Amino acid sequence: MISPNETEASAETPESTGTIEDVFPNSKKIYVEGKLHDDLKIPLREISLDETNHPSGRVEVNEPIRVYDTSGPWGDPEFDGDPENGLPALRREWILARGDVEEYDGRDVKPEDNGYLSNEHADRYNEKKAEENKLKEYPGLKRKPLRASKGTPVTQMHYAKQGIITPEMEYIAIRENLGREAAFKAIKDADGTRNLMNFQHEGQPWGAKIPDYITPEFVRDEVARGRAIIPNNVNHPESEPMIIGRNFLVKINANIGNSAVASTIDEEVEKMRWATMWGADTVMDLSTGKNIHATREWIIRNSPVPIGTVPIYQALEKVNGKVEELSWEVYRDTLIEQAEQGVDYFTIHAGVLLRFVPMTAGRTTGIVSRGGSIMAKWCLHHHKENFLYTHWDEICDICAQYDVSFSIGDGLRPGSIADANDAAQFGELEVQGDLTKTAWEKGVQVMNEGPGHVPMHLIHENMEKQLDWCHEAPFYTLGPLTTDIAPGYDHITSGIGAAMIGWYGCAMLCYVTPKEHLGLPNRDDVREGVVTYKIAAHAADLGKGHPAAQERDNAISKARFEFRWNDQFNLGLDPMKARSFHDETLPQEGAKTAHFCSMCGPTFCSMKITEEVREYAAKQGMDEQAALEQGMQEKAKEFVEKGAEIYS
Amino acid sequence: MISPNETEASAETPESTGTIEDVFPNSKKIYVEGKLHDDLKIPLREISLDETNHPSGRVEVNEPIRVYDTSGPWGDPEFDGDPENGLPALRREWILARGDVEEYDGRDVKPEDNGYLSNEHADRYNEKKAEENKLKEYPGLKRKPLRASKGTPVTQMHYAKQGIITPEMEYIAIRENLGREAAFKAIKDADGTRNLMNFQHEGQPWGAKIPDYITPEFVRDEVARGRAIIPNNVNHPESEPMIIGRNFLVKINANIGNSAVASTIDEEVEKMRWATMWGADTVMDLSTGKNIHATREWIIRNSPVPIGTVPIYQALEKVNGKVEELSWEVYRDTLIEQAEQGVDYFTIHAGVLLRFVPMTAGRTTGIVSRGGSIMAKWCLHHHKENFLYTHWDEICDICAQYDVSFSIGDGLRPGSIADANDAAQFGELEVQGDLTKTAWEKGVQVMNEGPGHVPMHLIHENMEKQLDWCHEAPFYTLGPLTTDIAPGYDHITSGIGAAMIGWYGCAMLCYVTPKEHLGLPNRDDVREGVVTYKIAAHAADLGKGHPAAQERDNAISKARFEFRWNDQFNLGLDPMKARSFHDETLPQEGAKTAHFCSMCGPTFCSMKITEEVREYAAKQGMDEQAALEQGMQEKAKEFVEKGAEIYS
Repeated sequence: MISPNETEASAETPESTGTIEDVFPNSKKIYVEGKLHDDLKIPLREISLDETNHPSGRVEVNEPIRVYDTSGPWGDPEFDGDPENGLPALRREWILARGDVEEYDGRDVKPEDNGYLSNEHADRYNEKKAEENKLKEYPGLKRKPLRASKGTPVTQMHYAKQGIITPEMEYIAIRENLGREAAFKAIKDADGTRNLMNFQHEGQPWGAKIPDYITPEFVRDEVARGRAIIPNNVNHPESEPMIIGRNFLVKINANIGNSAVASTIDEEVEKMRWATMWGADTVMDLSTGKNIHATREWIIRNSPVPIGTVPIYQALEKVNGKVEELSWEVYRDTLIEQAEQGVDYFTIHAGVLLRFVPMTAGRTTGIVSRGGSIMAKWCLHHHKENFLYTHWDEICDICAQYDVSFSIGDGLRPGSIADANDAAQFGELEVQGDLTKTAWEKGVQVMNEGPGHVPMHLIHENMEKQLDWCHEAPFYTLGPLTTDIAPGYDHITSGIGAAMIGWYGCAMLCYVTPKEHLGLPNRDDVREGVVTYKIAAHAADLGKGHPAAQERDNAISKARFEFRWNDQFNLGLDPMKARSFHDETLPQEGAKTAHFCSMCGPTFCSMKITEEVREYAAKQGMDEQAALEQGMQEKAKEFVEKGAEIYS
Repeated sequence: MISPNETEASAETPESTGTIEDVFPNSKKIYVEGKLHDDLKIPLREISLDETNHPSGRVEVNEPIRVYDTSGPWGDPEFDGDPENGLPALRREWILARGDVEEYDGRDVKPEDNGYLSNEHADRYNEKKAEENKLKEYPGLKRKPLRASKGTPVTQMHYAKQGIITPEMEYIAIRENLGREAAFKAIKDADGTRNLMNFQHEGQPWGAKIPDYITPEFVRDEVARGRAIIPNNVNHPESEPMIIGRNFLVKINANIGNSAVASTIDEEVEKMRWATMWGADTVMDLSTGKNIHATREWIIRNSPVPIGTVPIYQALEKVNGKVEELSWEVYRDTLIEQAEQGVDYFTIHAGVLLRFVPMTAGRTTGIVSRGGSIMAKWCLHHHKENFLYTHWDEICDICAQYDVSFSIGDGLRPGSIADANDAAQFGELEVQGDLTKTAWEKGVQVMNEGPGHVPMHLIHENMEKQLDWCHEAPFYTLGPLTTDIAPGYDHITSGIGAAMIGWYGCAMLCYVTPKEHLGLPNRDDVREGVVTYKIAAHAADLGKGHPAAQERDNAISKARFEFRWNDQFNLGLDPMKARSFHDETLPQEGAKTAHFCSMCGPTFCSMKITEEVREYAAKQGMDEQAALEQGMQEKAKEFVEKGAEIYS
């Protein structure tokens, strides 16, 4: 039988993303329905598997495996869309049905939103630099912005506190379970649970609280408590609900964004699609320079995942890069501009207080956060307290009206191993805790950003202090990098730290690509970065004992053991790369079904020997374990009689 | 000034290894002398750095950084050698001076050592398959093998127990300190030690015992106690002494070896040189198929690092791959053959006992260790106890005569997440402990092999049990892989586990390449695997607080902060790759000295802002910290006056 995925394998990165079927052979997009709400269609990716042909002649069917899918409608071959029109407004009806928002005219887009002095300036600039900038106003969106109309927050946290289970919460519960209620029950009730791991790990450093099955009520409770957030701006109805919290699957973020040095709008939208195809759970648009507003509009309208930004970057562009000219008014206007566009979470460096700035002067690498540097410079220049801190209440009031979540920035995070866990860093973290409390009182959802560069033995302290000082709000860290000596490999130096802090309880990991510290990531780097962080997040999920985590490992391990090579490739995070690596040594198609691998060759394989032990037991028509316990004597005799060597 | 490393940067892997100067720009090989012994020349690699040009005009000299070097004489441009003649016999005089070994005629090389029935068969086979096999008898070695002559072990452990500090031990002490006694003292005594980390981490899970400075006496003591080994066969005098133990730098091993499917002798020797250039501390030759003896001879004669093997692989070839025909006699002969050639450590699966075999039948992935499978099959076939176990005393007696260390195999290690930490695995580990005790009584050095595939939360138990049951003998693990879902990225899935177990106290990490489970590693994969494991080992060294670890991190962090791009590349583990990544975004040579990076562009950079804070302090002619404490008011004024923007 010719397997349907016997296509040319290539580890090369294609120029456009395509659908799930282009990137993941033998996968298809499926949708699972809700129970409490009748218009839910929760997307998953289903990987179909080959049968196992046992040497005895028995044919075993292997059930398909479902995995979490962030590719959105773009990943679905049935979806006939176009970036100029954006994605369907999936959540629009749910939002309107709550009856607490109103359409309004919104703020006019100004030339300075895109970094120009006037419309004429924009036209002139883009005419001259047409090739580089490709400014395109987004043509698709016809609707007006929404905001709260009843004086109450329109946040998921607010609803959760009222005891309301929103469609978003049910959607998330089903998504976190990968749609498989029965499967978990079966796993849970099965005998031999050692092989399937204990879901509740006693004595974990982070204190596991994950239930065996994620219910909508559990989602609601975690959000009400502030232990998890659902970043879903009412003006980004295209986004598919997802949750960030330590009692759920660990999430990853991919950064994109044009910069003063390189890249265009088209490239950024494509980068977002590419990153979410590989598994990015959220995307941060860190654009600087010209055309920030337009770039963001294109990204949000086309993004199935929540979009985060750092509003101070755009505010700074509006004052022509002059930090000292930043003001609350410019910043406030930027917040509203971005909230109306649909940004789902804002990184705000409100914890960089004047008194912490001098603490960084003795560091090896000073202040390395861009937002942190901006605020530090502003504070020193004006000798005033950080205006993000002094206006925190107003910032909360704005975000509560759109359900923009906070990602409270760590502007004083360490930029090197030498600077980890110092007084400036922890001073800011403590302030993050105070800001979190205030935001919660205003109904705004919050996560806290964390480092950075931290040696292994100092990672746990970060998690401990964050849980304690920030009242168990979700933690969102960049790496951390566990050493500074490997530029070009910082996805790995940081993947180690990311897996560890994820296991300790960090809720979301901001990816690092191989280009970190060296240059702007290209598509290959984004792929490598996302896959590395999917590894870190999944390793953490296994360590935490998330009930949905181990099924995929078990399926791939079984496929490997049974020499179902195509299944082994397809169950992996990057099937094309796995297949192309196999092709390098054994390019013949026959090798994809051969019962040997290149390490040991055809005449000997350790896996084959174990297979023989099992075949023996299977032939006896009895349970393997019982067969083995029946006595070594008979087995020894059988081995001599049948010869045991199949290939010799 | 044109920097000497302004050559074409390429991340491409060259076809032959070259010297240190070809792979590491601005590096040179240096040699440090001993104190107790007067003929020691301990090799290190020294990376010279550019000056820092402070904006104030002050020029700061940056001292060169010394790093551990495993490239051997091949890495030295002054060395004029040839693989046909092998490396100089560095340790020959030390060995003879101890007066406890004798030359003897040794065993004749037989056709079956290389997998042939007769010399005629070998000629015929290699004529027919000349292209594939390239059998070349090693021409260079003229000396006879050595073995113990006085009835006492000739092992480093034996000498250590007598209170003797051998030249090997002093060599190792200096090497572990990277030659810098004074530097450590300075670091230790300096103020502001927070930035330089605490060398003794209280409350580490593994219980740190590393002194601030590694003395020859400390080396001796650790070896006598069995907590560390110096794998140095008296017949491999070409090797440069190194130590494996948890109170020293974490070491890494790279596997090479031809297989039935592909590769030739030349390729294997070159692979060994390539792996040691990048930092492999030991190399295991896992060759199977034809020409095993000849391949090994070429590798050992040319290897500056200890060579390990799994003798059962060759023994199996001698009985034509028929496991049931394996016997103690064939195995014993193979041990002597390999000991005479100079193999430094043997992996011996003596803990795979008959009673453990049935415990694996219920596993998801049975027995995945090749050696474990062989012994399991032999046990079942004959219904007898593992002959490696029953002949352990004799095996110890042989190894004591040559100083071959044991790497007691973990033949029942888990082959998947599902099988981690099960009864079969831990049953074997307990037996490893008994075997360790017996070997120590015979004066033989021992380390214990460990898994494999283990989720994060089960890693620590492996280390704990090994320390306890195996009496603190060094642990040597393969990974472990922390998830099974990423074929093509198993250097990363396992690098996470390797860093963790290294931090917990594992002494040596066996590398995993991106091709693991998929194919044979090529030169690119070896480079990627070794660098990944250097990262894991170094992250662990930082976590453990090894006194020599952090200096390099601090130097590279300082270079990064000061925009000394070339130094940042050259201090890294893979300078060429780092440089080529930077070139992708900013190819102009001027960008290598520019005070900005591609993330933020020339008009804004967070590092620049911190620099401004410091410049201000420097201009005031006073300590930075004091300047900042002097009051914000003056600083604010100064900022306004000088404008603060350099590039705008």
